[in-house]
Amino acid sequence: MSIVVVGTVALDTIETPTARVTEVLGGSATYFSVAARFFAPVHLVAVVGDDFPEEHVRLFRDRGIDTSGLVVRRGKTFRWKGRYHEDMNHRDTLEVHLNVFADFDPVLPASYRHLGYVFLANASPVVQRKVLDQIERPEMVLADTMDLWIETQRDELLELLPRLDGLVLNDAEAKLLAEDENLVRAGLAIRQLGPKFVIVKKGEHGSFLFSKDGVFVLPGYPTPDVVDPTGAGDSFAGGIMGYLASDPTPGPGRLRRAIAYGTIVASLTVEGFSLERLARAARADIEARLQEYRRMLAF
Amino acid sequence: MSIVVVGTVALDTIETPTARVTEVLGGSATYFSVAARFFAPVHLVAVVGDDFPEEHVRLFRDRGIDTSGLVVRRGKTFRWKGRYHEDMNHRDTLEVHLNVFADFDPVLPASYRHLGYVFLANASPVVQRKVLDQIERPEMVLADTMDLWIETQRDELLELLPRLDGLVLNDAEAKLLAEDENLVRAGLAIRQLGPKFVIVKKGEHGSFLFSKDGVFVLPGYPTPDVVDPTGAGDSFAGGIMGYLASDPTPGPGRLRRAIAYGTIVASLTVEGFSLERLARAARADIEARLQEYRRMLAF
Repeated sequence: MSIVVVGTVALDTIETPTARVTEVLGGSATYFSVAARFFAPVHLVAVVGDDFPEEHVRLFRDRGIDTSGLVVRRGKTFRWKGRYHEDMNHRDTLEVHLNVFADFDPVLPASYRHLGYVFLANASPVVQRKVLDQIERPEMVLADTMDLWIETQRDELLELLPRLDGLVLNDAEAKLLAEDENLVRAGLAIRQLGPKFVIVKKGEHGSFLFSKDGVFVLPGYPTPDVVDPTGAGDSFAGGIMGYLASDPTPGPGRLRRAIAYGTIVASLTVEGFSLERLARAARADIEARLQEYRRMLAF
Repeated sequence: MSIVVVGTVALDTIETPTARVTEVLGGSATYFSVAARFFAPVHLVAVVGDDFPEEHVRLFRDRGIDTSGLVVRRGKTFRWKGRYHEDMNHRDTLEVHLNVFADFDPVLPASYRHLGYVFLANASPVVQRKVLDQIERPEMVLADTMDLWIETQRDELLELLPRLDGLVLNDAEAKLLAEDENLVRAGLAIRQLGPKFVIVKKGEHGSFLFSKDGVFVLPGYPTPDVVDPTGAGDSFAGGIMGYLASDPTPGPGRLRRAIAYGTIVASLTVEGFSLERLARAARADIEARLQEYRRMLAF
């Protein structure tokens, strides 16, 4: 099955305690696409400016990611600048320039409207709804969100939730949305708001899944080589949806396996800046790391 | 096999966002003993003042914990007062009154000196060494430590480490001891300082084990009912050492199973103030929760 992702393609400037990179390839749709492409065909919907380097488009195309939904507009590409703390679980956003993304109103190419697997990367719930309205009978819809929308467009978000199969959000966002400091209670409560399942990301600490089968919990894959955590969450979602699209038969453990794959893919992402490490990985590397991960969890 | 634990027995005053308790039973040796006693015989070494309520001594005795090493001194029992934040992973210590614990120089009863399993709860490494010197050929020694000793008695701690089988410490302490912000690298580095294995506690996020078999990682057991996290770390250690003492045959997975049991016991501790919840648990509750935990981790 094929996946359509609607999100950002960006140029990131990132400072970590030990290094700095300038205007490297980033964005939610970028990380998601490259991660999901290990498992299934991916069709990208995003906007970039006319300053967007051709080599980045090639990176997508070389991997077989369909870029017919990647719109080029006159102007500058979305830029983000962030700085990570010594403890790389924390970062400050230093600058955000939406540029051509500011008035992006995604229109899906006709050929995308029958695609079964849909990922709505972090965007306003109004934009997410408008995208969803363009898809005919999706098989599975997964969406991300953020504190900004929970705080400023709560009603619109609450309206969207029953239309989702899964909602992915981080721990702070889950607490904010559920208004509960206990993550387990928060996850259970969010599921009552409509999505069939809720995935709560805890950064290096892994994730929770709340579904009809109960609570499921996985730690992060412990890597000694954290270079840059940017994109971990979107790679995680990409690994999850990619695996789901590659194994469309509903069955016990399918969603859990997907989350394990997402965890592994995210652990590769953080081992380099931008797509440096993830794009070098082969599917076999993912499988090998998954085996190692299973071993680490066995008792 | 039998366990000897040397640590504190205290009276705790605890504030959480929703409740407050005054002078309830606490202390590292308390939580450790009650947790370990589910699995193996426990012999307690600690000091209390002559104000220590008899009912607390009864709680130990009723559970078959040997209190012949519990010294009563003229004066007041060790008291601790703490306040948890909205996010209960964080707390402030409001008051510490060492009282009779201030000049406690533990002398083990003669009958304790041949006990095989030794837990040195958090104390100065000088005191921990003096305790260890009193044990003849221990089977397994596990020790806890804290930031204070890492900062003020680093040399003494480094001298102790090669005499330990296992060191248990939390994430911030591991980073401080290894001088490395990456927990995986920190854990691996601490193992090079002498202990056969290192267990890094991450509060609600679970723990890492670093041993000759590599890295092992477990999430916390996700409980929606966190009432009071006090004592979780010492219960965790108690569950670990209790299980190890109950299954003394070295074999693959023994340490991992022990950590899983420790995780479960700690999850019970946090569901009530003091020993409220843990003391009500039966071994069967622990086994049932362990099965549930296995299910939550399977993919």
